[in-house]
Amino acid sequence: MKTRRADRLVDMTHYLLEHPRKLVSLNFFAERYETAKSSISEDLAIVRRVFKTRGTGDLKTYPGAAGGVFYTPLMGEEEATAFVDEVIAEVSNEDRVLPGGYVYLSDLLGQPDVLRQTGRLLSTEYVGEEIDAVMTAATKGIPLAQAVASELNVPFVIVRDDAKVTEGSMISVNYLTGSSKRVEKMALSKRSLRSGSRVLIVDDFMKAGGTIQGMQTLVREFGGTVVGTAVFAEGRSNVRLIEDFTSLLHVETTPDTTGQIKVAAGNYLSRIYQKKD
Amino acid sequence: MKTRRADRLVDMTHYLLEHPRKLVSLNFFAERYETAKSSISEDLAIVRRVFKTRGTGDLKTYPGAAGGVFYTPLMGEEEATAFVDEVIAEVSNEDRVLPGGYVYLSDLLGQPDVLRQTGRLLSTEYVGEEIDAVMTAATKGIPLAQAVASELNVPFVIVRDDAKVTEGSMISVNYLTGSSKRVEKMALSKRSLRSGSRVLIVDDFMKAGGTIQGMQTLVREFGGTVVGTAVFAEGRSNVRLIEDFTSLLHVETTPDTTGQIKVAAGNYLSRIYQKKD
Repeated sequence: MKTRRADRLVDMTHYLLEHPRKLVSLNFFAERYETAKSSISEDLAIVRRVFKTRGTGDLKTYPGAAGGVFYTPLMGEEEATAFVDEVIAEVSNEDRVLPGGYVYLSDLLGQPDVLRQTGRLLSTEYVGEEIDAVMTAATKGIPLAQAVASELNVPFVIVRDDAKVTEGSMISVNYLTGSSKRVEKMALSKRSLRSGSRVLIVDDFMKAGGTIQGMQTLVREFGGTVVGTAVFAEGRSNVRLIEDFTSLLHVETTPDTTGQIKVAAGNYLSRIYQKKD
Repeated sequence: MKTRRADRLVDMTHYLLEHPRKLVSLNFFAERYETAKSSISEDLAIVRRVFKTRGTGDLKTYPGAAGGVFYTPLMGEEEATAFVDEVIAEVSNEDRVLPGGYVYLSDLLGQPDVLRQTGRLLSTEYVGEEIDAVMTAATKGIPLAQAVASELNVPFVIVRDDAKVTEGSMISVNYLTGSSKRVEKMALSKRSLRSGSRVLIVDDFMKAGGTIQGMQTLVREFGGTVVGTAVFAEGRSNVRLIEDFTSLLHVETTPDTTGQIKVAAGNYLSRIYQKKD
């Protein structure tokens, strides 16, 4: 059944949002809507304009027989700053400070809208870059990894501190925790990551960066390359094992029980936006 | 700036998809697009028709000053069956059988599109039902819980087998594992679930159901109510502690090393679709 433009625009928007960072051929849409490719092109021009105006993301059209349309979710600097400011206000609460100076963040990292926005913001750094998989460490990094992987439309893999019977053969590495200098072990199922993968490492919180350094080692053990590292929050640390990372928040607490907390923006502005100028 | 219908349709579709199961007032759209409410109503009629035809979900409009529009993501029976058939074919692979008869599923549960579709399918059972939170047990249930919570637009909480310094005070319960009859412990951060919450329990794999029974106990300890239980796959078990659950897959393996696996559809058809007839 031939479709009207209004109907096509609704369905096309839905389809593109569910298939980010994949080339969709004009033929696919032409057949789906039984409509000439020239009309499809006009539809896509409208979608592109609205996505651009509203800051939803970027829509690129590639001409020719092998061409098509490619949607990349993006978050603009203004929306990103407003979002991070909101999160800062939310985290700047003395009730979040736990004994030892740890910060309670699990509520935020369990909210679908916070995760969706964080995923879109962190993925913005990797426009046009090839990423095959997102890697995180169990448990608290998982929601964030899933959120970023969803925007990048690639699988995510979970590194664990123990070998589980449901994971099959695993490759494990030892690593030094940054602050306490203990030797720990982490492992990843052999089946979960293809050799040669380009990997983005994502985690919820980074202090010295020992866990992230461990994951970097693991990526190399799998014959892969680390494309980048992104964390929700960085804490203060006397030692810093990782220099090349992107953070949304910078959080400082006092390790005693006074419950003081200082939250500021992380380095996302300089890492994601200013380098593009 | 007043907007054209075509532009409004694209942005409205995007907005509704990102805000499922929330009442959005017509005034909100009228102001966002500087357009009369009558035109907004016509726009929404188009979106509703396309969402219905394409099986995206249900769009309800409530008239009056306190009214608005409410989008519920849904998966129809036909799409659900096609999706589950695909997953069955994918899981029916002897290479997935691990020593002890365990089944490797982590690759599937790390794919954004599989998770998105599973989330939409499992949430379809709860159209029109009030749910305040999704609960799961670390580690492998997390991606699924997040996917379902995203469609329901509610937070998800993660039950752990240990108390972590980053979770603050926790409430813990002991539970019996179904098959081996060991006593285990699980705990949830006190801050993460409000008293009186209506909770949907989600997990990746269920055999006897000991873990799920433990979570049910935990929900009651928090003064909440269990609305339902949904799992990606159920295995065979001589003991069954949980009768009231929904599953996508039924998986049977032999515990020896012959690697045999039999995968069939779970009970989702009778639980989600046939009861609605």
